[in-house]
Amino acid sequence: MNAPSFRNWKSVQDEVLRRIHAREWKPGELIPNEADLAEEFGCARSTVNRALRSLAESGLLDRRRKAGTRVAAQPVAKATLDIAVIRHEVEGRGSKYGYQLLTRELTVPPARVCGAMQTPASDALLHVRALHLADDAPYAVEDRWINIGVVPQAHDEDFATISANEWLLKYAPYTHGEIAFSAVQVAEDDADILGVAPQSAVFAIDRLTWDKDASVTKVRLLFTPGYQLRTSL
Amino acid sequence: MNAPSFRNWKSVQDEVLRRIHAREWKPGELIPNEADLAEEFGCARSTVNRALRSLAESGLLDRRRKAGTRVAAQPVAKATLDIAVIRHEVEGRGSKYGYQLLTRELTVPPARVCGAMQTPASDALLHVRALHLADDAPYAVEDRWINIGVVPQAHDEDFATISANEWLLKYAPYTHGEIAFSAVQVAEDDADILGVAPQSAVFAIDRLTWDKDASVTKVRLLFTPGYQLRTSL
Repeated sequence: MNAPSFRNWKSVQDEVLRRIHAREWKPGELIPNEADLAEEFGCARSTVNRALRSLAESGLLDRRRKAGTRVAAQPVAKATLDIAVIRHEVEGRGSKYGYQLLTRELTVPPARVCGAMQTPASDALLHVRALHLADDAPYAVEDRWINIGVVPQAHDEDFATISANEWLLKYAPYTHGEIAFSAVQVAEDDADILGVAPQSAVFAIDRLTWDKDASVTKVRLLFTPGYQLRTSL
Repeated sequence: MNAPSFRNWKSVQDEVLRRIHAREWKPGELIPNEADLAEEFGCARSTVNRALRSLAESGLLDRRRKAGTRVAAQPVAKATLDIAVIRHEVEGRGSKYGYQLLTRELTVPPARVCGAMQTPASDALLHVRALHLADDAPYAVEDRWINIGVVPQAHDEDFATISANEWLLKYAPYTHGEIAFSAVQVAEDDADILGVAPQSAVFAIDRLTWDKDASVTKVRLLFTPGYQLRTSL
C-alpha cells in the first residue's frame, strides 16, 4: 500500500499485467473496481483508469460501462519487433558490415509492382538490387523499387556506397507502411547471390511504405539460411 | 495553435512523429525546445515533456540534458505483432478451424529441449504434437513441451478437443518469454503431416515462456507454405 512504485500509471499497468500473466486474475474473470484498486495501490483513481484503459486498448482487458472490467477471455500477446537499418543490425551483432550494389536502373516495373505501389503502369521507377554482408559473407539481398515521383533526390544518388535501405531512412518521407514476414524457396539468381543452394528456405521481409496516398518504396529482403528475427514477450 | 487536438500528450506525440516521418525534422536535427513547442501546440510544457520522453524511450529522439533534443540519427522502426491463439487467428481470417491431436506422451526430452528449458536432464516433460486446420486443410503443426512441474494440471488434460496452445493460455502462468521467427526446410515427418513436399520452405515460430525462473513451455509452430505474418508500420 502506498508503495511509491504505484504512483504512476505505468507501474500500475505493470502490476495489473503481472496479475493477468500470473493467472491471479484469470481470463474472463471480473477484476476489482477502480476505486478499490486505487485504494490498494495508494494512487489516484485517474491513475488506475489510465492504466486499465491502456490495457483495454491492447486487448488484455474487456471494459463494459456497467458490468465492470474483466480480463479478456482470449488475451492476445503482443510482440514488438525493432526494424533497424541492416547495417546497424549487422554491427549490433558484432559483425563487420559490407555492402555491394548489384544493379541500379530506371525502368517500368512489372504489373505486380506497380499494382502494389499504385503507380501508373507506364511510369518508370528506380529499381535497386544490392547485397548486404556480415563479416564478408552474404547476409541479405535487397530488391527495391523507389517511386521517384515522391523521392526525386534518388535520381542523383548512385547507391554505390550507401544502401537504399539506409539512404531512404534519411531522405524519404513516410506516413505509414505495411510489413510482412514469410518463408520462401529462393530462386536461382538470388540463391547464387546469397551463395546457397536453389530452393533453400530463406526468411523474407516485404515492406511497402507510403507518404499519405503515394507509395514511397517497396522492398523485399531475403536473408541467408539461419536468420532469425527474435524478440521478448 | 491552441488546437484542441493537441491538449493531450498522445496527440502531441502523433504530431511530433508525423514531423519526423515526413522529414520536416530530419535525422540528427535539433528540434525546438519544450517551451517553444508548448507554445506552438497551445498545451502545457509537461504535456510536451511526456510526449518527447515517450518518443525518446522508443528510440526516435535523442535527449541530452543541456544539448537539447535531436531526432535520432538512426531511428528504429517498431512493428507490433499480435500473437493470437491459432484458433482465433484462423477464425479471424474467416475460415473454419479444426484441430487434431497427433501424440501426447510424458517423456524425457532430448538435450536441446531440457537445455533450453533449464529442466533437469532426467525430468520427464509432457510432449504434445497436434495439427491445426483451416477449412479442413493443414494450417500449422504444433510441437510442444510442457513443464509439468510448473503446470501440474496438464497431467489431467488429454488435449483431445482443446489444443495446448489454447489450454495453456487459460491455465498456465507466465511472467516473460522469448519468440523467434525463421524460415526452415521442413523435415519428412512434418511435411507428411502438413501435406507438402519434404524440404519445402515453411515459416517457423519458436516460443519459450517462463514463470519467474522456471520454464513453462517450449513450442515450435510450422505453418503451411504461403503463410505470412503481417502488420502495419
